[in-house]
Amino acid sequence: MSKRKRTPRTARSRINAPRPTGTAARSGVKNTHNAGSAQGLWLYGLHAVCAALQNPNRKKHRLITTKPAAENLQEALPEGFSMAIDPEIVDRSEIDTVCGPDSVHQGLALLVSPLPDLYIEDVIDPDIQENPQATDTLVVLDQATDPRNIGAVLRSARAFGVRAVILQDRNAPPETGAMAKAASGALEHVAMIRVTNLARAMWTLKDAGYWCLGLDGYAEHDIGAVDPTSKRVVVLGAEGTGLRRLTRETCDQLVCIPMDRSAESLNLSNAAAIALYVVTRKR
Amino acid sequence: MSKRKRTPRTARSRINAPRPTGTAARSGVKNTHNAGSAQGLWLYGLHAVCAALQNPNRKKHRLITTKPAAENLQEALPEGFSMAIDPEIVDRSEIDTVCGPDSVHQGLALLVSPLPDLYIEDVIDPDIQENPQATDTLVVLDQATDPRNIGAVLRSARAFGVRAVILQDRNAPPETGAMAKAASGALEHVAMIRVTNLARAMWTLKDAGYWCLGLDGYAEHDIGAVDPTSKRVVVLGAEGTGLRRLTRETCDQLVCIPMDRSAESLNLSNAAAIALYVVTRKR
Repeated sequence: MSKRKRTPRTARSRINAPRPTGTAARSGVKNTHNAGSAQGLWLYGLHAVCAALQNPNRKKHRLITTKPAAENLQEALPEGFSMAIDPEIVDRSEIDTVCGPDSVHQGLALLVSPLPDLYIEDVIDPDIQENPQATDTLVVLDQATDPRNIGAVLRSARAFGVRAVILQDRNAPPETGAMAKAASGALEHVAMIRVTNLARAMWTLKDAGYWCLGLDGYAEHDIGAVDPTSKRVVVLGAEGTGLRRLTRETCDQLVCIPMDRSAESLNLSNAAAIALYVVTRKR
Repeated sequence: MSKRKRTPRTARSRINAPRPTGTAARSGVKNTHNAGSAQGLWLYGLHAVCAALQNPNRKKHRLITTKPAAENLQEALPEGFSMAIDPEIVDRSEIDTVCGPDSVHQGLALLVSPLPDLYIEDVIDPDIQENPQATDTLVVLDQATDPRNIGAVLRSARAFGVRAVILQDRNAPPETGAMAKAASGALEHVAMIRVTNLARAMWTLKDAGYWCLGLDGYAEHDIGAVDPTSKRVVVLGAEGTGLRRLTRETCDQLVCIPMDRSAESLNLSNAAAIALYVVTRKR
């Protein structure tokens, strides 16, 4: 359960709401909430801005671009796509100011609201759960805190058809421009779900037929030898410390990525990319 | 050939020089040059600083730490290890100043010289090349420019026993604190070699018996089906644009990582991690 306020009635109406079209539909997670924090954030970079403009569930407030970047954006958007927001042509320095001096904004920034909240129950889709032929992959991140790393996981998640990335609310950073930039558009396609209790969320998924595969440096079994079920959750811990005890114990199987023992560990997003490649290529 | 000044005599004496001990030996690349730029850089973060302190080829100038970080560092270093540099206990703000406000420095920073230059010929090791049982993996990065991404590639390279990462001098950034932080110590273990002409460097390796495997989103063959030779080079291009024509044509085989076609592309370091996992697990 999320610590955000919700009523069963709202949850029910949400689950029965018609499936949205467009990018939200692509993630396969019903994204029809309207909690929407009033706080805005600046997304920047061509892929992040382009994907946000095309996401009907993303509230957009201002689009500022340099002249050349406006042309790049037009080329990157599908032909005939109507932006529904007028770009303001500005000096590069103005974009530097809103994005921060170190951001590689490529001359454009979009002020948006954070995406509406999603709950773990939104992931459960009878069309997928009751179809034995359907494969489905989800990701759980235990104690991930670096927005760039989370963004990079979202990007790989999208590349391997993952519908949702689930994080613990207490530790996970909010959506940020740096996260969206690292996600290279995937923030609009892969549902990011914050939960209060990660183990409980994993149990909700297990009850719905998912198999939880945890990555653990000390596991005996090599991920390459695993035979994943069609509905699976890849569970990754923080770099260095790995999975917390309860998360580890909630997994159905623990596997390792074999590597040079003298190395510290893999970067979180690199470990996620390898795990998703291995798990999704088998079925 | 590198554009840096060198004479054949120096090169020859270098190749015949005794094998260094310690971390440089671990990378398996002879690192006995003494070109050493006078310019310093600040390394920060526990793993990066800890690895640099233990690298005999790294010239260290100043170590500044907060009091708690000094204790963490002592715990992270091998028992009885002598630092050969006195840590200066300072306020956190002083470390913020030298590392930049956004750096996650964990309370310690080490002022060092860049590592001595290495050349492509330094990678060629008769002990490895003439032993058919020995496996060896190298990485070539075509047009990689982001220091953090390069650092993350170095980290995965180390995890999968890669001896050297080769980049084009013109585009590649110098060593930076951000690169070292992302490499999590691997900058001291995996040789980073800058060359003027990437295709020529690949030919040097091919002449020495290496097989060049290029990653290309449009390649017909799936990397999972590849049968790597024991001496192989994994060649990766920039995100989005991929390998340049000449680099692609110099590869012996082109393979792709199968992924969702609607996704932009994988992050460079994530693609590298998958490729190194696949290539190194087969032999």
